[in-house]
Amino acid sequence: MKLYDCSTAPSPRRVRIFLAEKDIDLPKVEVDLRHGEHLSDAFQANNPWCTVPLLELDDGTFISETAAICGYLEALHPDPPLLGRDPRERAMVTMWDQRCERDGFYAVAEVLRNKAKGMQGRALTGPHTVAQIPALVERGRQRVQHFFEALDRQLAGNEFLTGDRLTLADITALVAVDFAGWVKLTLPDELNHARRWHQAMSERPSAKA
Amino acid sequence: MKLYDCSTAPSPRRVRIFLAEKDIDLPKVEVDLRHGEHLSDAFQANNPWCTVPLLELDDGTFISETAAICGYLEALHPDPPLLGRDPRERAMVTMWDQRCERDGFYAVAEVLRNKAKGMQGRALTGPHTVAQIPALVERGRQRVQHFFEALDRQLAGNEFLTGDRLTLADITALVAVDFAGWVKLTLPDELNHARRWHQAMSERPSAKA
Repeated sequence: MKLYDCSTAPSPRRVRIFLAEKDIDLPKVEVDLRHGEHLSDAFQANNPWCTVPLLELDDGTFISETAAICGYLEALHPDPPLLGRDPRERAMVTMWDQRCERDGFYAVAEVLRNKAKGMQGRALTGPHTVAQIPALVERGRQRVQHFFEALDRQLAGNEFLTGDRLTLADITALVAVDFAGWVKLTLPDELNHARRWHQAMSERPSAKA
Repeated sequence: MKLYDCSTAPSPRRVRIFLAEKDIDLPKVEVDLRHGEHLSDAFQANNPWCTVPLLELDDGTFISETAAICGYLEALHPDPPLLGRDPRERAMVTMWDQRCERDGFYAVAEVLRNKAKGMQGRALTGPHTVAQIPALVERGRQRVQHFFEALDRQLAGNEFLTGDRLTLADITALVAVDFAGWVKLTLPDELNHARRWHQAMSERPSAKA
């Protein structure tokens, strides 16, 4: 089993933190996103969506999508549980993880990919050319602010997003908040709960992954 | 346990088909999306993201997001398995389900929500006003075409998206393809594999859900 990774990219960082929290060490293959290796025929044969993280199993199966990869790893290495301990918890983790991915991570990507000169034609991930749309930069910024506020509301009454234990949802949210820094968006001072949580998350050894 | 539903909306249809395939009958609460009931304070208190489907458990927990709801229902009613029978299959189902949701369902929504007069200010789901961006209509159309082609490639060698058994990924893809009809996008004649699959899916009794 090995992980196709890019050490500077936020998306695979979700899996790297997940692995660190479980104390799992996996062989990694560095994919050179900067020079478009993920768009090569060789990479597309393994992952037609041209994304990392990508997990290769020993039987030759390729798994993309963070939630799919982490679900597989959790089945093999259940402790500590990071996807919930019972059906109700698992549903809460899935719900919050998907929401943090969509409302947080993809909102930041909407800003970055529609703004950065180096991202022309790359406004969405994948093999197709997708032109930048300038109006999405401001829409994305507003979405990120709403995401920050939603985090703060949820964390007002919870140590972590789904209760008193860290889960994949917190990892996704942490990576999204740090990714927002790439477009100079940071948690506002008045969002005390989100800032308390972000500081605690950042101090965990796994955050360096 | 009860399901907040809207009988005319595509998103909760994913859960309705999932329930029909498992032969589960759940009490349903019809939410009047047409008149904005999902944006009311009462509904937002249960689901701050203002979406259906929404599952209410007997302990008062609310679960939104189709994958989270279906994961919970699968744990309670494992047969027939619709989320995979082992960790590898589960990863494949999660991967394809997420991809069909994002590249298919949300691409159609991108067209519809940025085009329809009745959707002004509602270009994204949720409690916030989001203005329409006309350029997203054409972008969304192209994304839907790419989604159709990706389905066809995957179904060339598989009866269903992840192999020889129907899973949630097929349900999500079916609902996305039918939703595309709302914006007059249909599977092109030459995509024989996708059309064969779509016909078989549409003939199942669950498709009426």
